[in-house]
Amino acid sequence: MQTTFTITTSGLGLYEITQEVSSWVRGSGVLTLFLCHTSASLLIQENADPDVQTDLMAFFSRLVPSADNPTMQFLTHTLEGPDDMPAHIKAALLPVSLQIPVLGGRMRLGRWQGIYLMEHRNSSHRREIAAHLSVDGTS
Amino acid sequence: MQTTFTITTSGLGLYEITQEVSSWVRGSGVLTLFLCHTSASLLIQENADPDVQTDLMAFFSRLVPSADNPTMQFLTHTLEGPDDMPAHIKAALLPVSLQIPVLGGRMRLGRWQGIYLMEHRNSSHRREIAAHLSVDGTS
Amino acid sequence: MQTTFTITTSGLGLYEITQEVSSWVRGSGVLTLFLCHTSASLLIQENADPDVQTDLMAFFSRLVPSADNPTMQFLTHTLEGPDDMPAHIKAALLPVSLQIPVLGGRMRLGRWQGIYLMEHRNSSHRREIAAHLSVDGTS
Repeated sequence: MQTTFTITTSGLGLYEITQEVSSWVRGSGVLTLFLCHTSASLLIQENADPDVQTDLMAFFSRLVPSADNPTMQFLTHTLEGPDDMPAHIKAALLPVSLQIPVLGGRMRLGRWQGIYLMEHRNSSHRREIAAHLSVDGTS
Repeated sequence: MQTTFTITTSGLGLYEITQEVSSWVRGSGVLTLFLCHTSASLLIQENADPDVQTDLMAFFSRLVPSADNPTMQFLTHTLEGPDDMPAHIKAALLPVSLQIPVLGGRMRLGRWQGIYLMEHRNSSHRREIAAHLSVDGTS
Repeated sequence: MQTTFTITTSGLGLYEITQEVSSWVRGSGVLTLFLCHTSASLLIQENADPDVQTDLMAFFSRLVPSADNPTMQFLTHTLEGPDDMPAHIKAALLPVSLQIPVLGGRMRLGRWQGIYLMEHRNSSHRREIAAHLSVDGTS
């Protein structure tokens, strides 16, 4: 069983998709989410305190600064803007695919886990996530 | 086929679970391990020289220092202690899920590969790993 | 359905395997690629401008410098050369396994996505990737 989730982002940030994915899964098996882009990521993170998301974004902006930051002057792929190559680097560091076991119609997420798309570009983008659900024959 | 592996950790460090997982898998297919937490990670790493594990822990403690380190003063989510937000950041950087092909009852791990739970919190925690094995119908 | 892809590398760098993998997959289901090593990684990245690959390699060499770099003097696992422990660290940071949904015989890669093996050692290595394809019964 396959589908595509489409998310329109409005720049850098975390966009929660837990509910959308949750209402699609059924039965028992394993869910695969695959992001079809090289300048955004999928992420499972805490969905309770929004400060966690602020701090995550702040950390990754420091770990991989904008290309116009003096520490990043070694970058050569800069034609598409100072946020482009850092976006590719973050897309390498953070997951492009996630797999979550599904049992009795529910993803086996922990109590505090939410599923997010993390946008690494500054401007709005339309992002597609390919989803696949393997349903167990017998389990 | 699904199960849950439970590991009780005693603070920061790598806890090998290869043998426990190995004795659960059977047949041929693909194994999914999914960690139900946002302050620990799953990791496949060298299981020969224990120095590798020491160095891995040291590197990640330097890459993501404690919140009371001057370089981390931008963090805002600090109520649960100086090791909490760094734990979430490491949980973003390192895998929450692993998939390993299984053939003839054995995981296709390389000669030096072991499966680890990496605890990012300083104190003891009870960690659950949701496991799913897709067994091939015909292969 | 399982197979092994073997790649002989010639030191640090990205080696594209998209075409080899693409000609192996069929039907609809989900592909798992698992790298049987702890000093190399799998990566999905942009396959258009080669500068992206140069910049990725440059970033990771800065994030995880050679063990003879003064900032890395805390490393203890150095007997196998100054590139060995940094290779293990990069293998922790970057994916060891990838999952890609397959539909109608084609991987659901985005337009700019290629699949790469990233070699973290300086010298030539023979690398094995275990591949598994779950084919959907009904979808």
